[in-house]
Amino acid sequence: MRATCILLCFFTFLVASSAHPGKKKQYKPCKELVLYFHDIIYNGQNAANATSAIVAAPEGANLTILASQFHFGNIAVFDDPITLDNNLHSPPVGRAQGMYIYDTKNTFTAWLGFSFALNSTDHQGSINFIGADPIMIKTRDISVVGGTGDFFMHRGIATIATDAFEGEVYFRLRVDIKFYECW
Amino acid sequence: MRATCILLCFFTFLVASSAHPGKKKQYKPCKELVLYFHDIIYNGQNAANATSAIVAAPEGANLTILASQFHFGNIAVFDDPITLDNNLHSPPVGRAQGMYIYDTKNTFTAWLGFSFALNSTDHQGSINFIGADPIMIKTRDISVVGGTGDFFMHRGIATIATDAFEGEVYFRLRVDIKFYECW
Amino acid sequence: MRATCILLCFFTFLVASSAHPGKKKQYKPCKELVLYFHDIIYNGQNAANATSAIVAAPEGANLTILASQFHFGNIAVFDDPITLDNNLHSPPVGRAQGMYIYDTKNTFTAWLGFSFALNSTDHQGSINFIGADPIMIKTRDISVVGGTGDFFMHRGIATIATDAFEGEVYFRLRVDIKFYECW
Repeated sequence: MRATCILLCFFTFLVASSAHPGKKKQYKPCKELVLYFHDIIYNGQNAANATSAIVAAPEGANLTILASQFHFGNIAVFDDPITLDNNLHSPPVGRAQGMYIYDTKNTFTAWLGFSFALNSTDHQGSINFIGADPIMIKTRDISVVGGTGDFFMHRGIATIATDAFEGEVYFRLRVDIKFYECW
Repeated sequence: MRATCILLCFFTFLVASSAHPGKKKQYKPCKELVLYFHDIIYNGQNAANATSAIVAAPEGANLTILASQFHFGNIAVFDDPITLDNNLHSPPVGRAQGMYIYDTKNTFTAWLGFSFALNSTDHQGSINFIGADPIMIKTRDISVVGGTGDFFMHRGIATIATDAFEGEVYFRLRVDIKFYECW
Repeated sequence: MRATCILLCFFTFLVASSAHPGKKKQYKPCKELVLYFHDIIYNGQNAANATSAIVAAPEGANLTILASQFHFGNIAVFDDPITLDNNLHSPPVGRAQGMYIYDTKNTFTAWLGFSFALNSTDHQGSINFIGADPIMIKTRDISVVGGTGDFFMHRGIATIATDAFEGEVYFRLRVDIKFYECW
């Protein structure tokens, strides 16, 4: 409940401000979820298993390649299974759907716009994310900008880590979602 | 006004919590809008009327088609008229601008990122949306993540319904926008 | 701090409502930043300097051109340097990363989804933006939908102005970011 949270925040603030004047504020999430999602990129041969595909690239629009090494400009669309643990074969609790864009010439970084559509006994609803993803850094923070169903109007921060990868075909991402606005 | 809303929410909470202990919370929107938008997809022959176009697809990046049947990976860009009723020829009150992505191999689902740019005597300003859109379901909820002008800093939920369609060329969407944060 | 902001807003409201009954509300930002970013579009010959590239277009998906004059449907991916002043050669304080989409047939408008990844002595963290950008208008407002690091959970409005451009290769954008929710 929003009003409760605000009162809570207010008292947290009183405590925090007296205890650590001048220090960085620490907020406590009102809800937290850790989930994994699994991205199997289409390479022309794995249509049965693939969950994502590159759909745009500089060469796609009849320009020459700008920076092939780091996939600059590639847009990938995905529909990846979400699991509670790091096992691709665990029963999915939902789908991660959206896109990522490779957006640097001289290293790997991405920009993400996607949603978690959760459909399990524990969670029904969607969570919407956007943010910059500097892939080579161990953990990256993006914004949780909204939600529906069980996550009605929620906001927060998602910390993403590349939990495992195999070549350029399989990526497993661990997402630690901390909500700071719950309704 | 935010502060008012928060106080209101607080009292709503008191009432709600005493009336229905243990039940799902019900929030009352601080503002509501029902609008329609009309998407005419470019098919190579309707340039004069078309309001959207497919601009990326797995084949666009020189990969073979991953799942042509459900358009997996297609990105469409649109600039669709918004009307107050379900008539395509009613005077538009603004434009729906942005993109959708078909993102499932074995059914139709989309991911949406778009804005309503409203310009009428009643409303001046923009509303920004993102979310997953499982097209085959009757009504789908996405997030209203922000707004400008008359919708300064607003947040809420938009419920989308496919009101009508003709083949794969015309889609009419009904959007019921409920704001829960008004400023 | 959120709770502080809310109290502040509340008192601001009291003052504002007594001073200007019936007038449009005026909010005071809790934080403001003015930054510039510089977009050098890849034209096939400037790979060394280019910071953005067109990666999708109606022709990319094997359809004919819908509206070449206004680039309808073009998606550009960018990784642009951010500077404190309007000089492209000033030391960058971060990168603007994401995409824009040209989305009108008969004028220039764009849809933006991007992030500022700031990394300087003054600011560490990211700011996430989405919104409609009617390019030909002098100043355009989009939404700041979230942030991380120093901009943890922030929301606000960004006012974008095209500060300069050279043909279709260089664009300089001035962004006045006003945060109305600071934590």
